[in-house]
Amino acid sequence: MKLYDLEPSGNCYKVRLFAALANIKLEIVPVDFLGGEHKRAPLLDLNPLAQLPILVDGKQVIYDSHAILVYLAGAHGGLAWWPAHPFGQAEIVKWLSFSANEIQHSVCAARLVQKFGYALDYDAAVEKSPRVLSVLDQHLKANEWLAIGRPSIADCAVYPYVVLAHEGGVDISGYPHIAQWINRIEALPGYLPKP
Amino acid sequence: MKLYDLEPSGNCYKVRLFAALANIKLEIVPVDFLGGEHKRAPLLDLNPLAQLPILVDGKQVIYDSHAILVYLAGAHGGLAWWPAHPFGQAEIVKWLSFSANEIQHSVCAARLVQKFGYALDYDAAVEKSPRVLSVLDQHLKANEWLAIGRPSIADCAVYPYVVLAHEGGVDISGYPHIAQWINRIEALPGYLPKP
Repeated sequence: MKLYDLEPSGNCYKVRLFAALANIKLEIVPVDFLGGEHKRAPLLDLNPLAQLPILVDGKQVIYDSHAILVYLAGAHGGLAWWPAHPFGQAEIVKWLSFSANEIQHSVCAARLVQKFGYALDYDAAVEKSPRVLSVLDQHLKANEWLAIGRPSIADCAVYPYVVLAHEGGVDISGYPHIAQWINRIEALPGYLPKP
Repeated sequence: MKLYDLEPSGNCYKVRLFAALANIKLEIVPVDFLGGEHKRAPLLDLNPLAQLPILVDGKQVIYDSHAILVYLAGAHGGLAWWPAHPFGQAEIVKWLSFSANEIQHSVCAARLVQKFGYALDYDAAVEKSPRVLSVLDQHLKANEWLAIGRPSIADCAVYPYVVLAHEGGVDISGYPHIAQWINRIEALPGYLPKP
């Protein structure tokens, strides 16, 4: 399987992290992002949103980091990471939405501005962050893992932009349960260090 | 099953629409949104993000419209709407992410400002909309449905805010394949009219 990848991208790191934890072998294909390789054929034909990562498994092409996580876990990772029962899947999808919406438009957006110069509303992203981080911290006060009582692709989806929040100027030191969860993730066998 | 609901909410409509199409009976519980009922106990205990919809099925509580769609389809809707194979699930999750991120922060955000007075960046939401709608239109040029070659929860997740885009001042008349897809959805047996 090929993963079209950008090393500093948190979305790409979600996939590399999960593959490392679940011992799934990926052929990493670095993309010339600054040169706009993702904005023209052949990559633009694989993902019309012109985003990374993109996974190619035989004839199957999957873009969107969360869709890739579901595919890799379901097809190659086993039920430990993505259960077959609907409530467990829904618990995980809840956190994938939290990642795609709340995390994306708070700590992730702040990092995109500060680290990569994106033209997003930095102040709005920073202002939104404490509420998002508080919800996460409160959940982790009562739960070791985000969903299904064990490490899952939900943790792989949310961890990257939270642990990289300082690169966007957002301080996460005031959230003790997030800190403990980060320690638990980083102690998992196969953990791949953050970019 | 109880659905804590707000009639004009597109997120709530996603769930009501799917339940209608899949013939799943829900007890609709209207929430006093203007009165802030979702921001205090007992609803805030069910969803710390203070958002609707919320589904309660026995002892199981699920919030986030996409998580509810996955749960309802998996537990009560059958494989036609949410398949068991990983590639099909990933195809659908790709569009759930598209809904949670691209749709949410374009046509949906524009509607939140114009219809409900939310303090979001209206110009940014409107500016983003054509690119999002173009990607959708191009996909629907080659595909009758968003995923798995038939109607699925992906269509139920994306359709509401697209068909309601005019309420945010976004014109979708220039996207012929979106228009045909809307017609196909509205012709499905059990279709529930938009709010």
